[in-house]
Amino acid sequence: MAAEEARAVPAEHSGKGLSHATMANTPSGTVITSPRGDTPIDQATEAARRVIDALLRTNRDDANLARVAAELDAIADHLEEHAGPVQERLVDMWSGEGVTRHDPVTGPENAVAPPLVLRGYDDASVRGEVALTIPYQGPPGCVHGGVSALLLDHVLGVANAWSGKDGMTAQLNVRYHRPAPLFETLEVSGRQERTEGRKIWTTGQISHNGEVCVSVEGLFINKKVPRPT
Amino acid sequence: MAAEEARAVPAEHSGKGLSHATMANTPSGTVITSPRGDTPIDQATEAARRVIDALLRTNRDDANLARVAAELDAIADHLEEHAGPVQERLVDMWSGEGVTRHDPVTGPENAVAPPLVLRGYDDASVRGEVALTIPYQGPPGCVHGGVSALLLDHVLGVANAWSGKDGMTAQLNVRYHRPAPLFETLEVSGRQERTEGRKIWTTGQISHNGEVCVSVEGLFINKKVPRPT
Repeated sequence: MAAEEARAVPAEHSGKGLSHATMANTPSGTVITSPRGDTPIDQATEAARRVIDALLRTNRDDANLARVAAELDAIADHLEEHAGPVQERLVDMWSGEGVTRHDPVTGPENAVAPPLVLRGYDDASVRGEVALTIPYQGPPGCVHGGVSALLLDHVLGVANAWSGKDGMTAQLNVRYHRPAPLFETLEVSGRQERTEGRKIWTTGQISHNGEVCVSVEGLFINKKVPRPT
Repeated sequence: MAAEEARAVPAEHSGKGLSHATMANTPSGTVITSPRGDTPIDQATEAARRVIDALLRTNRDDANLARVAAELDAIADHLEEHAGPVQERLVDMWSGEGVTRHDPVTGPENAVAPPLVLRGYDDASVRGEVALTIPYQGPPGCVHGGVSALLLDHVLGVANAWSGKDGMTAQLNVRYHRPAPLFETLEVSGRQERTEGRKIWTTGQISHNGEVCVSVEGLFINKKVPRPT
């Protein structure tokens, strides 16, 4: 059954052979992050997200956490027994030229990622909505300021890719206007503003009910760490 | 046995009744983040970290991931059955005035956190070392720029607490000098530079083998979101 499901993954979900999604080759409003599929790896990762969240909420005294620890360790043992050398895995996870599935913001295979889903629009913006839960808490009931910076750095990178010219983060100036609440829908957006030679300036923000909570200006340099081969 | 182990947690590990650790009341070189204990919740969270990491590395074709997904969902169901209302949990997790155990950078109860351990020194700096793995990857083999920003925002907050005057992040200016490698020991540090009325300026950096990879300047405002009661 696992093999059946693996075969059912459309090629464009695998990240392999997918050309870079840009405004030039993709209709406005298209999802440009890796979509979550109904594959076993995506289901296992989503279940791991539920575990992360529930561990922060469950009753410390009566949830039999010693048994839970043993069960999670047994699952980790099993997964590690089936893991190859890290260097081979790095080559595999970066294969192809398209979007990847493992990053800590949008990656459906990364349980650290909420994951954020972004669409690209023909005004050069990328936009998405996300509600964050307790693992992402900073001040009581609010999103951690560093988590907002993490999301925005990634969104600026996706906005650059969408505009067709991207690179490495050189500077990130983040301004915090008001706390972003947990559990509520936040609007996240980014847009490439201008480029000059190898320099790229990109802006973004996180809003709640139309009010800006966090805004960012990023400077990127059009160079890349090569994908491992 | 779970109750036995719960009773074995020293009071200073519970976050309850712990006075704020500052230079004024704590010897130099003291760990000022929440220490990982050998309690069931910390063990379960550490095991969840192993699962997150192994899910990104395991072989997608032969690790029986459909069964792993079902097992993780069953664990999440169990934990959620033993979770009370979120608002009650928020009050509980913020009880006392000391450090908390749940944040996404240093929190031993948060599987999203590496977790980073920081010590406070009498030159006003806070410092720690951490090696990050695949869940925190940005460019191939390197730490995600947003993850560096997340760590540094949190480190600046801890540096402020250590200096005895802290607050909410207002601005964060992050500069990326060179990629920070995954899997290798990174030195992370922060220090409060000066204060003026309610404004607090704090700097920090992430280094590898003595070379600065990422530096940050933060402006904080001495106000707080109240702890829920």
